[in-house]
Amino acid sequence: MKNSFDVLFNPDSVAIVGASEDPSKMGHQCVDSLKDRGFKGKVYPVNPNPNIKEVLGIKTYPTLVSIPEKKIDLVIIVVPARLVFGVLDECKDKGVKGAVIITAGFKELGHQDGRNLQKDMAEIADRAGIKIIGPNTFGMVNTHIGLNASFSPYLSQLKKGGIAVISQSGGIAHVIVNQGVAENIGFSKVVGLGNRCNVEYADLLEYLVDDDDTDVILLYIEGIDDPRRFISAAKEAALKKPVVACKVGKSPAAYKPAYSHTGSIAGKYELYEAAFKQSNIISASDCEELLDIAKILSLSAPPKGNRIAVLSFQAGPGIMITDVCSTKGLELPSFSDKTKKTLEETLPPMTIMTNPVDLGFARGWETLNKVIRAVLEDSNIDALIFFMLPHPVVPFKELFKGMVDLKKEYGKPVVMCINSHQMETQDVIDVFEKNSIPVYTTPERAAKALSGLVRYGKVIG
Amino acid sequence: MKNSFDVLFNPDSVAIVGASEDPSKMGHQCVDSLKDRGFKGKVYPVNPNPNIKEVLGIKTYPTLVSIPEKKIDLVIIVVPARLVFGVLDECKDKGVKGAVIITAGFKELGHQDGRNLQKDMAEIADRAGIKIIGPNTFGMVNTHIGLNASFSPYLSQLKKGGIAVISQSGGIAHVIVNQGVAENIGFSKVVGLGNRCNVEYADLLEYLVDDDDTDVILLYIEGIDDPRRFISAAKEAALKKPVVACKVGKSPAAYKPAYSHTGSIAGKYELYEAAFKQSNIISASDCEELLDIAKILSLSAPPKGNRIAVLSFQAGPGIMITDVCSTKGLELPSFSDKTKKTLEETLPPMTIMTNPVDLGFARGWETLNKVIRAVLEDSNIDALIFFMLPHPVVPFKELFKGMVDLKKEYGKPVVMCINSHQMETQDVIDVFEKNSIPVYTTPERAAKALSGLVRYGKVIG
Repeated sequence: MKNSFDVLFNPDSVAIVGASEDPSKMGHQCVDSLKDRGFKGKVYPVNPNPNIKEVLGIKTYPTLVSIPEKKIDLVIIVVPARLVFGVLDECKDKGVKGAVIITAGFKELGHQDGRNLQKDMAEIADRAGIKIIGPNTFGMVNTHIGLNASFSPYLSQLKKGGIAVISQSGGIAHVIVNQGVAENIGFSKVVGLGNRCNVEYADLLEYLVDDDDTDVILLYIEGIDDPRRFISAAKEAALKKPVVACKVGKSPAAYKPAYSHTGSIAGKYELYEAAFKQSNIISASDCEELLDIAKILSLSAPPKGNRIAVLSFQAGPGIMITDVCSTKGLELPSFSDKTKKTLEETLPPMTIMTNPVDLGFARGWETLNKVIRAVLEDSNIDALIFFMLPHPVVPFKELFKGMVDLKKEYGKPVVMCINSHQMETQDVIDVFEKNSIPVYTTPERAAKALSGLVRYGKVIG
Repeated sequence: MKNSFDVLFNPDSVAIVGASEDPSKMGHQCVDSLKDRGFKGKVYPVNPNPNIKEVLGIKTYPTLVSIPEKKIDLVIIVVPARLVFGVLDECKDKGVKGAVIITAGFKELGHQDGRNLQKDMAEIADRAGIKIIGPNTFGMVNTHIGLNASFSPYLSQLKKGGIAVISQSGGIAHVIVNQGVAENIGFSKVVGLGNRCNVEYADLLEYLVDDDDTDVILLYIEGIDDPRRFISAAKEAALKKPVVACKVGKSPAAYKPAYSHTGSIAGKYELYEAAFKQSNIISASDCEELLDIAKILSLSAPPKGNRIAVLSFQAGPGIMITDVCSTKGLELPSFSDKTKKTLEETLPPMTIMTNPVDLGFARGWETLNKVIRAVLEDSNIDALIFFMLPHPVVPFKELFKGMVDLKKEYGKPVVMCINSHQMETQDVIDVFEKNSIPVYTTPERAAKALSGLVRYGKVIG
């Protein structure tokens, strides 16, 4: 049997209450998000103005109840705050299971009236079995059915994928998915929790852990009101699927605005760090690292341990990778005697053969093949980071094909770091990532991402 | 009178000793870098093989001395190590003032022979008045005369600009300029110091401080052998031009490979941090932050103090900016009573009017104009960060034009943070940056960059 969340994320019909003809209004953008952008269900704009017959060519209705269809699954509410309760009443009559309340003006106001209003809202919704995303949200997206229940039409172009994004802040959710669009990373669901009326992080952790479209759960957190429930939900989820989180508020200066934003108590960063650890959440220190770690977790199984080999055509970036690895708890051990022997026999005399290896001018594929094979075979090594700057003298084609084959053969995680001034490398990146080899552009990003994967390996031990 | 560095960076003639017909050889790439890529001086490939008459259509000579021109300014040496000394002898006879020695196999080998060879090399060069970039380097670039004295032909496409990059590691120099190419950032000179035979960081600091093409000096450091001289040169330079540096080696694991790389003692990171502070160097913790800070320093005068206002259409990124600002020593003070009054009169009732300001749905230009003006006029505020996600309802054109005008009117530093999934915003970015308003894509990057600018403000006090 479908629960409310199933209906919320997979509705057959969506009504937009507050739909507008005026392109400068959010109520217009919400209709735009659902028209001809992949959603196959029914879409009903609702506007009480009798002169408005249609929005973007879709017939409008004056009220929710006047829609001929008996049941409406999801309602997007984008009317002034004082009208929201009336709409919720109609929702009950229409058997609505999910509501996205974009309207602001509740708990985030910081006064008792706002808090009371939101409490009332939660009670009404709970009694009617309605799950509310928001209020004070941009909305949410389910890429796998083309559902863009938000005021950002361009979110319809998000690529389908396995990463679910749950963020209190709509702005930061956009920052994260914008990086995803630029780097061709796919998402399953993107949710702006906003004020969290009756849907909390814990609810979505419980739902997403059984969501077949979601491989990794990414959380962006300003503050949490019920840490005990959060920790318990995260702990259970993290054993089945990786949960990676970033918490804003390293400084007290950010606590107050965080409260004003979505009505959440930011609290001490250290307490959150401890809670994350206790719940087996992989923590990230900024948005980029957050998505970088989510990507590696969605593409690659974790290594057996934290012992990393670094191969690089350029020593400097290899040293940078080593440095970041060490500060993030990864080790670069010595190679086994067998590997050492192979490297000595294979690499030219002046190259650096210790870990991190500077391949220098050893660029024939035969040589590279022997070196990579020896390193992946080495029982001292759990995972490999390979750095390169594309240069005319590097045998790309063989290297790229060979690396995919060797990764398959040995099964150990491989991270490619390809730093290029050219954009056309996206094709190459796509092939690697289809073959479970995540690609990053800078040494720092590659090392930080692998550290996240290693930490998840410890969780599922 | 021109000194050796003037000639090194502005040669009228360049010889490539070790020029090769084989595209897989560095000696071929070095010729490619200088042919039809903007360099107006003379180019002489040198190869002793009598069967090779030309490389890439340029007539070759069997030796340096056989070139008919009496004097050669710059020689790029890309022959096996055992042949380098012979070439240096010929350099003396040809009045060479600068040499780029790409060849490796000297101090970085870590044994006494290697160290001795390099010492001999320095003595010969010093006696002949030759400044050596390298050995063990990719080379160097002077964009302002189209000189690409390196084995990376694509470095010829670097945009002219005011940032000089001095890096021990060629790989990291490439990582830095690749970011520059992707983000349309210009460079003056890019130098791979390599083993630093007789040209050290201190030498280039002394030279670049008087280089009219250079506004900001960027250093990437693995290790320094003469810290006293470095500190004194940096201190003097930093009073005239900003010097920004990143030092690898936060972990001991990176010390050893750093030595093997270019023969430098990495040493304790903390000591370097202290030395940077003492020399008024602005430090950065990774390559991205390094170039981000160099960019803001090249575009904007520093603010009078560390008191920042944050304006944002989305609260979450505003909070993230606040958070990073606070951890980086920037303050977000309360606005003056006058500003508070203007904000209350101008912004819709539910927006957050304290610093960081959430502009919310206040999107008419008239409103924005009043708010930005009030904030820039506020005597509590030294600089502004403005965050936005492009959205159909934002009045871009007026905002962009208006921001440029207001920046001119009030003179305080303004940083734009534009987070977009679209690449076409580069045009917008270019207009802002031509008008001294640096643009960054993420909240974190914007805040870290501004922190660098504020720190430089303290240096020049």
